[in-house]
Amino acid sequence: MEQLHNELKKEFQLERMILFSDAVFAIAITLLVIELKVPEIERPELSDGKLLEALAHMLPKFFGYIVSFMFIGIYWTVHHRLFGYVINYTPKLLRLNLFFLFAVALMPFSTAFYSEYLMKHVLTPVVFYTVNIILLGFFNLLMWRHIGNPKHRLSEGLSTADLKYSTFRAILVPALFTVFAFVYLMNPLLSSMLPAFVPLIMRLVKKNYEKRKIKQTIKDN
Amino acid sequence: MEQLHNELKKEFQLERMILFSDAVFAIAITLLVIELKVPEIERPELSDGKLLEALAHMLPKFFGYIVSFMFIGIYWTVHHRLFGYVINYTPKLLRLNLFFLFAVALMPFSTAFYSEYLMKHVLTPVVFYTVNIILLGFFNLLMWRHIGNPKHRLSEGLSTADLKYSTFRAILVPALFTVFAFVYLMNPLLSSMLPAFVPLIMRLVKKNYEKRKIKQTIKDN
Amino acid sequence: MEQLHNELKKEFQLERMILFSDAVFAIAITLLVIELKVPEIERPELSDGKLLEALAHMLPKFFGYIVSFMFIGIYWTVHHRLFGYVINYTPKLLRLNLFFLFAVALMPFSTAFYSEYLMKHVLTPVVFYTVNIILLGFFNLLMWRHIGNPKHRLSEGLSTADLKYSTFRAILVPALFTVFAFVYLMNPLLSSMLPAFVPLIMRLVKKNYEKRKIKQTIKDN
Amino acid sequence: MEQLHNELKKEFQLERMILFSDAVFAIAITLLVIELKVPEIERPELSDGKLLEALAHMLPKFFGYIVSFMFIGIYWTVHHRLFGYVINYTPKLLRLNLFFLFAVALMPFSTAFYSEYLMKHVLTPVVFYTVNIILLGFFNLLMWRHIGNPKHRLSEGLSTADLKYSTFRAILVPALFTVFAFVYLMNPLLSSMLPAFVPLIMRLVKKNYEKRKIKQTIKDN
Repeated sequence: MEQLHNELKKEFQLERMILFSDAVFAIAITLLVIELKVPEIERPELSDGKLLEALAHMLPKFFGYIVSFMFIGIYWTVHHRLFGYVINYTPKLLRLNLFFLFAVALMPFSTAFYSEYLMKHVLTPVVFYTVNIILLGFFNLLMWRHIGNPKHRLSEGLSTADLKYSTFRAILVPALFTVFAFVYLMNPLLSSMLPAFVPLIMRLVKKNYEKRKIKQTIKDN
Repeated sequence: MEQLHNELKKEFQLERMILFSDAVFAIAITLLVIELKVPEIERPELSDGKLLEALAHMLPKFFGYIVSFMFIGIYWTVHHRLFGYVINYTPKLLRLNLFFLFAVALMPFSTAFYSEYLMKHVLTPVVFYTVNIILLGFFNLLMWRHIGNPKHRLSEGLSTADLKYSTFRAILVPALFTVFAFVYLMNPLLSSMLPAFVPLIMRLVKKNYEKRKIKQTIKDN
Repeated sequence: MEQLHNELKKEFQLERMILFSDAVFAIAITLLVIELKVPEIERPELSDGKLLEALAHMLPKFFGYIVSFMFIGIYWTVHHRLFGYVINYTPKLLRLNLFFLFAVALMPFSTAFYSEYLMKHVLTPVVFYTVNIILLGFFNLLMWRHIGNPKHRLSEGLSTADLKYSTFRAILVPALFTVFAFVYLMNPLLSSMLPAFVPLIMRLVKKNYEKRKIKQTIKDN
Repeated sequence: MEQLHNELKKEFQLERMILFSDAVFAIAITLLVIELKVPEIERPELSDGKLLEALAHMLPKFFGYIVSFMFIGIYWTVHHRLFGYVINYTPKLLRLNLFFLFAVALMPFSTAFYSEYLMKHVLTPVVFYTVNIILLGFFNLLMWRHIGNPKHRLSEGLSTADLKYSTFRAILVPALFTVFAFVYLMNPLLSSMLPAFVPLIMRLVKKNYEKRKIKQTIKDN
């Protein structure tokens, strides 16, 4: 009974950390919308033509909003998958998670900066956004390595192949964004479009991984 | 014991997705208030008459605030009912849910846009708001169909009649809003008032469904 | 097993409603801070004297912030106590709770409006704030009555005396605020100070209730 | 069964208070980003040089953002540790927790005020920020003492040494900040840098405590 009680308390402490992270994710993903400002057109200029024009001017903002929503969503899904393996926590995991959340919470600013100057032939906002994505990937990687280390006894059911695949994915996104930043120097329009393809690339990687996993299972039996 | 542990972990992973959704709902519904700006009147003009006039000017804002609060509230209730049936999750359900939350998180902007130009004889904001409601209904529909598909084994206790009724409801709201947008072309004032009747129509549909359900149960016995 | 599963699902559905409410409370209480704007003083005027002066000008804002934090905090405590008795939910309880949360979510606006014009001899913001407090009290009262009604079988361990006391408290706060609004007509300064005494009055009422409860228990034995 | 049910209800009520606190922490820590405003540079002045210059001007803002993120993170970790011992709650604990959350929710304002005037030779914002940190430490201290008091039977597994160490830590941070405020009078630049060292000092204190604890355990056996 005593042991069960302690077990439950420990589990709740872990869940608390996870739900706190979820709240940060939820706020960051919902705060993105604050950057979308309602176009203000006064009478007598007000007309549907003017409003549509104003919305067209906001296209980079909408684009940035959608891309960042997608990325925070993807990283939430990764966080969800990661903590699906976790059965215990260490002060270090708490700390790594806070650093990771720092990068998540910074996203609304990076997005606003990036989308404000999209297609305006300046590199700084692209680099800033890329650094934010690199931070996300970096702390994500450190978390996978920390929980994947069998010495720490933090995870359960995480195979070496799963771990390898997850750390590969954690590196892939920042790597792609770094490439995009370089492409930007040559072709800003092309570079701006590329982030939209990242989820597609991620899915191809995933499908490929799953196919190989099934093959492996067949071979093993 | 091992199996129970895995079962609990799976259940927590599902709950986590639900509570994350709740946080997004809660933030979107509470962020609506940010669009209500305190009227600023300086002395010596300051008087109760001036303040009441300023509040009267804000009536479309208050109207939009209340309507959107109501809709986010209704969709939260639907989400609550939907996940009352769900016993498992798939990556696809996670993705559909994220798309649905995208439409939820966009509501504060759509509401601000819609209520800023309410009664000002422009169609664009009405269409924008309608598209947002259509997105909500569409992803809601896809979720009902996904969890209602017996192949996926995602739900429990969801009868065919319940599923039919829920998908009907998911289509009804966007359909009504599309009609409102057309009415707007002819009579903006009338059209602007109509959203307030949607919950009423929804309740009539619900009452009717419940009556038929009871009759059916009586017939069956 | 099946029954236990359903029981747990029902309980989670109830908890979900509670945690959703908590998120709205948490956001409303934290959004209050947005109304506190950093005073902007440029060089060469910048000095500690100027900054202190600016902070002194913000005193009504700080006062409004603290009072509203206190009230949202108090109503959260009441909500916490109320749902401590609840063991089931009805669609009506969901709806009442949403209406209650509407009043909670409106608080940041009412507070900003109220504190912007505090001590400036206008009645409108005071009335607006009072109406918001009345809405809070009203929906709180409806919830107590709904869960307290034995027909609905929603609560457990809620004695008639507890229910009476809770409904009395639910009415007391709006009643006090209505009085304050009338006092305001005669003496704005005094009226503005009064909200700060509400928690004190509430505690006196509580102490008195607890004393009487203990006496009753002694008499009963 | 009845007893188990009551036990679970009580536990959920405690968890609700904790998750509500987490939501406030999460919102406060994520709202910090709102103070980071995207630099607005119009064409034809727009260039990477100008943007980098604008970012350089924002350095105090970034510094304030990071320091406050760190402190809210640290206090969340402390709150997480504190409630790891708690097994029950009293109305007083609810109240102390609300006061503590008041200080947490004020942090975005204090941070904005502090970082707006960093390095500008004014003392008021530094004092304001220090007072906020003192409030955090003070209510944290009161909570440790309240749950640590064996009379209240609120905690489990909290040794006298742990309690002493935790109360010491609760006092240490405000004490350090008070020193920084005095240093500020003599050397603003140095003082502004000092907060960044607090986590380092905290870790040294922690390591030292853990070392002594291990020694003690060895001696005891």
